[in-house]
Amino acid sequence: MPKVGILMGSDSDLPIMKKACNMLDKFGVDYEVKIISAHRMPDIFMDYAKTAEKRGIEVIIAGAGGAAHLPGMCAALYRLPVIGVPIQTPSVGGVDSLYSIVQMPSGIPVATVAINGAANAGILATKMLAISDKSLREKLALYEEEMKNGVVAKSEKLDRLGCDGYIKQMN
Amino acid sequence: MPKVGILMGSDSDLPIMKKACNMLDKFGVDYEVKIISAHRMPDIFMDYAKTAEKRGIEVIIAGAGGAAHLPGMCAALYRLPVIGVPIQTPSVGGVDSLYSIVQMPSGIPVATVAINGAANAGILATKMLAISDKSLREKLALYEEEMKNGVVAKSEKLDRLGCDGYIKQMN
Amino acid sequence: MPKVGILMGSDSDLPIMKKACNMLDKFGVDYEVKIISAHRMPDIFMDYAKTAEKRGIEVIIAGAGGAAHLPGMCAALYRLPVIGVPIQTPSVGGVDSLYSIVQMPSGIPVATVAINGAANAGILATKMLAISDKSLREKLALYEEEMKNGVVAKSEKLDRLGCDGYIKQMN
Amino acid sequence: MPKVGILMGSDSDLPIMKKACNMLDKFGVDYEVKIISAHRMPDIFMDYAKTAEKRGIEVIIAGAGGAAHLPGMCAALYRLPVIGVPIQTPSVGGVDSLYSIVQMPSGIPVATVAINGAANAGILATKMLAISDKSLREKLALYEEEMKNGVVAKSEKLDRLGCDGYIKQMN
Amino acid sequence: MPKVGILMGSDSDLPIMKKACNMLDKFGVDYEVKIISAHRMPDIFMDYAKTAEKRGIEVIIAGAGGAAHLPGMCAALYRLPVIGVPIQTPSVGGVDSLYSIVQMPSGIPVATVAINGAANAGILATKMLAISDKSLREKLALYEEEMKNGVVAKSEKLDRLGCDGYIKQMN
Amino acid sequence: MPKVGILMGSDSDLPIMKKACNMLDKFGVDYEVKIISAHRMPDIFMDYAKTAEKRGIEVIIAGAGGAAHLPGMCAALYRLPVIGVPIQTPSVGGVDSLYSIVQMPSGIPVATVAINGAANAGILATKMLAISDKSLREKLALYEEEMKNGVVAKSEKLDRLGCDGYIKQMN
Amino acid sequence: MPKVGILMGSDSDLPIMKKACNMLDKFGVDYEVKIISAHRMPDIFMDYAKTAEKRGIEVIIAGAGGAAHLPGMCAALYRLPVIGVPIQTPSVGGVDSLYSIVQMPSGIPVATVAINGAANAGILATKMLAISDKSLREKLALYEEEMKNGVVAKSEKLDRLGCDGYIKQMN
Amino acid sequence: MPKVGILMGSDSDLPIMKKACNMLDKFGVDYEVKIISAHRMPDIFMDYAKTAEKRGIEVIIAGAGGAAHLPGMCAALYRLPVIGVPIQTPSVGGVDSLYSIVQMPSGIPVATVAINGAANAGILATKMLAISDKSLREKLALYEEEMKNGVVAKSEKLDRLGCDGYIKQMN
Repeated sequence: MPKVGILMGSDSDLPIMKKACNMLDKFGVDYEVKIISAHRMPDIFMDYAKTAEKRGIEVIIAGAGGAAHLPGMCAALYRLPVIGVPIQTPSVGGVDSLYSIVQMPSGIPVATVAINGAANAGILATKMLAISDKSLREKLALYEEEMKNGVVAKSEKLDRLGCDGYIKQMN
Repeated sequence: MPKVGILMGSDSDLPIMKKACNMLDKFGVDYEVKIISAHRMPDIFMDYAKTAEKRGIEVIIAGAGGAAHLPGMCAALYRLPVIGVPIQTPSVGGVDSLYSIVQMPSGIPVATVAINGAANAGILATKMLAISDKSLREKLALYEEEMKNGVVAKSEKLDRLGCDGYIKQMN
Repeated sequence: MPKVGILMGSDSDLPIMKKACNMLDKFGVDYEVKIISAHRMPDIFMDYAKTAEKRGIEVIIAGAGGAAHLPGMCAALYRLPVIGVPIQTPSVGGVDSLYSIVQMPSGIPVATVAINGAANAGILATKMLAISDKSLREKLALYEEEMKNGVVAKSEKLDRLGCDGYIKQMN
Repeated sequence: MPKVGILMGSDSDLPIMKKACNMLDKFGVDYEVKIISAHRMPDIFMDYAKTAEKRGIEVIIAGAGGAAHLPGMCAALYRLPVIGVPIQTPSVGGVDSLYSIVQMPSGIPVATVAINGAANAGILATKMLAISDKSLREKLALYEEEMKNGVVAKSEKLDRLGCDGYIKQMN
Repeated sequence: MPKVGILMGSDSDLPIMKKACNMLDKFGVDYEVKIISAHRMPDIFMDYAKTAEKRGIEVIIAGAGGAAHLPGMCAALYRLPVIGVPIQTPSVGGVDSLYSIVQMPSGIPVATVAINGAANAGILATKMLAISDKSLREKLALYEEEMKNGVVAKSEKLDRLGCDGYIKQMN
Repeated sequence: MPKVGILMGSDSDLPIMKKACNMLDKFGVDYEVKIISAHRMPDIFMDYAKTAEKRGIEVIIAGAGGAAHLPGMCAALYRLPVIGVPIQTPSVGGVDSLYSIVQMPSGIPVATVAINGAANAGILATKMLAISDKSLREKLALYEEEMKNGVVAKSEKLDRLGCDGYIKQMN
Repeated sequence: MPKVGILMGSDSDLPIMKKACNMLDKFGVDYEVKIISAHRMPDIFMDYAKTAEKRGIEVIIAGAGGAAHLPGMCAALYRLPVIGVPIQTPSVGGVDSLYSIVQMPSGIPVATVAINGAANAGILATKMLAISDKSLREKLALYEEEMKNGVVAKSEKLDRLGCDGYIKQMN
Repeated sequence: MPKVGILMGSDSDLPIMKKACNMLDKFGVDYEVKIISAHRMPDIFMDYAKTAEKRGIEVIIAGAGGAAHLPGMCAALYRLPVIGVPIQTPSVGGVDSLYSIVQMPSGIPVATVAINGAANAGILATKMLAISDKSLREKLALYEEEMKNGVVAKSEKLDRLGCDGYIKQMN
């Protein structure tokens, strides 16, 4: 049974939002993914948001771009945490998406991550679930170790190859 | 029976949104004013937006600040034109409100006016109604004349008083 | 006889503004398209704007980029609604166009849509005409249904294919 | 025993951050408040962040302005969720604080709320705790009801007093 | 006979635009000042702009705020140089005015000065006239000397009084 | 003998600044082009700026990007008009260049044109020279006619080909 | 003999720039303060910048607002480090000053601090001098201790007084 | 023994940060390069920053993008000067990196250079070391000469080839 609902208003957001799925897969957290638009199908959207808690969804991750209302409207209809992912836009780079998601009025918070930061949305959802799930805390600890080792390995590689050698290998 | 619905999410927007009322009063257009929040009372809001057309509302004017979802969600639920008024905010000056209202996705337009431009929202609603109402066109023509005469009078006053004299009278 | 006049200051805006035409075609609304510059041919422009109402034009859609004066100057010369489409620019992404169109002074509103939002301009014009045209309201209802079904179909496809399968099909 | 740690880098942030305390008080969530600077006392800060989980802290709320590193550095050192509150700044309005908090690199999310949105940070922390605490869900439901009733009361008051009457009462 | 026409769209711009007058007074350049709106009185405006050259106006200075079309429309109708003064706005600080004036399309330049930079507009107009007027070049040389001496005097005063003493005298 | 000096700080600006040359060629205005850096060769630069007036230069056009000091420093050292061309930058799109050029302090104006607006700089220089040169006014009139005819021809072509046909011909 | 030269283009910057003096006083570093304008007195300015190294100045701190050229022009004329202080501006908050100072072309760096960050400029100059001055390193260590103790004292006071008590004492 | 430590949080920053190495190579200043993340390996990072002074590092150059905390956290832990290089980002162009680095609170300065300005970071570090190293001053003088000659050569080439010829050679 999914614990996290991942929503996006348009399938063009899927390549970005996929990174949230990847993170939840890594931590073994069950999730569902839906293309669902607050604007184009408000009734279906509202039904989803209102029934999500009862169906066992404990966190919603919602990605949207431009005048991005999906995360905020989720937060108005769903009692548990909503994480918002501002999607980059061609005109103003995603500042529109960011402001539309983060600048919520008092009473209806959206936990906003970086522009296109869907991977972090997956991690943040896991951290929320880890509050009451010790095994997730352990998986997060392993992930931190893995990140650290990844950078250490790169730094050692740089020591070995030098800047020029390293850059040559990047291409 | 009101033809224009004027909505705002918070009573703090009322002193700005009042200017839309003033304009509609000037043109003799009936309207109703509601404090209604898409975030804090989504069911009441949706009921309002979905039934507005049947109740005879022909244009909705919605003002909101920050992550301003009220105009866009109206546009998702109401078939006729929605005019959005971005309200100025203390942190980023209303750019957040502007982006949240104007950058709507394809399919769900919001007719956006200037930051704090509620007076223009009232005029724009009147212009929309004037498409099929000749008497409103005449009232708009009178208003244009009035605006022109206002500036002409100021220019003549400036000719008479000179800059220093005029500025002294402004204070 | 055209009811909507679609204007742009430069033929480089045509690929964007074409989307407004497509929408009006879809709703069966007659329109005319003109390349007309407020800066480069002010007399022709003014003649157009001043006579448009008499020739039966009920809405003007004007697209422009940079210091975009075309929509606002239309609004100064034409009594009925003007819809402004800010065109994206290479330097500041269209924020210049957006501010030049949306920040109109009191008395002369321009109904502004998103940067490059010409499709929404076509829909918004149709909504304005639908105030007094029941058949357009029905066409708008069908379009809403069509949009909803489009997203539902994509969501079902995502259920079938999963994220990886769906993304593979996108490319 | 406190479940939420509320941190700020400077006592000048206290009047804003106090709103997070007020919300946690309302929901009956225990918390501690610390003035702690990642820049001015890095050792004390790190000790706090590294031991917080063991001391039972389940969510950290960190407010900071300008080049706001406190929330992100907490997120680097503490395994459970960190909520960041960007504090408004006199020069650029808090966009600096917002970017410094929300634009975190992959792997280290900060759940960012609006500029000066400390009240929402308190609510968001409660929502995170409510994932595994049914009684908090009930309190959140009551709070939603309270918010809704507050707006309804204002709307009814507006119906009674009219715009002018309402505005007069606001001053 | 005036050589410089100073235009503004609203009398609220007069206290700023007055600084252009002061500079022209200082250099002994004749000018006229008009409140004239491209939006509210387009016919009067166009008549002014089209006949200005024949009436002997050699430079136009136009100040405007928000969606500031006055300078650009002058430049479309008047053959000689137009100087644009972006007026500061309460919401976005005058960036809207600046973009609306400076980002003109190819073919129709506006010589843009700083936000609220009306004094510099007066100096710039004088410099343009000085191309063919030696006596103005001499007056500009004197003004440069005066500016230099003003700063030198302040620097000497700072040497005498020290920072604390100087700041005390400023209040 | 050149009347206009065209300066740029780096040869990477040449493809943009070339458009100013093209315009001056079109109007038959003599000019000189120099790569000259206020930062990298301050003495040569100052010598140029201080002696330009004596050598008969009547207008300087200076293009620069980023922390663009060239136009403003010219304006500090040269008595006649300086036109500044902000060059687009990869990071912030040229807003840095624009602010560095347009926001000059009182006393030292720079006539700023659009980001990358070198063609307009050439036209603006011509307009300044046309104040005292009737033949240039006639050439400017011809250019205006040419611009108008260019747009009229495009509009007629659009009438003939329709949108789809026109767009096909654009590619 | 002064080791640090503190420059500002206008005496209106003195109350901000004074904070750099205060810091240098605290660390016992000798300095001189000058009001000197690259725009209004270019010869005096250049003479200062070119001779500063010979006169023993080892760091220059330059504060400026708007199109802030003083720090960058110092960096072009003076071989040792230049620290730039962007001064806040009423229109765009100091983003203009920041871009004009920080976005220097390759070859001529300016060490830029925060908007209005003159105190940090004083500390940064001290750190540069401390590279070869052990006693300054010790003073910097003491200052760090002092900063840490200041925050610790505030945190302890907050523990004693609680939020409400602390805020009451702030007013 | 290295005198300059060059740090970056991610190997993706290496191609930019390499330019700092190149400059230090040119001036014969010894340095070390490390990939080190304040977020992903806080303990290793802190150990590096705290021991750098003792190991003889006299300047740290730190590059980072987005919510760029590396330079500021270095400055909190290391007594001598820290130079920050804001790395360009795809969404907002590096304004996020710039604000996160330059807007440091009072007490903890970071000497910030331009977005992607790593070459200038290398020069700035050299200038800092040159305060107490006469031979570096001579090398800086040679570099200035070299820069000047480079631009002079380009200007002469432009004189010879003309604009068209020069541009042809650029491609």
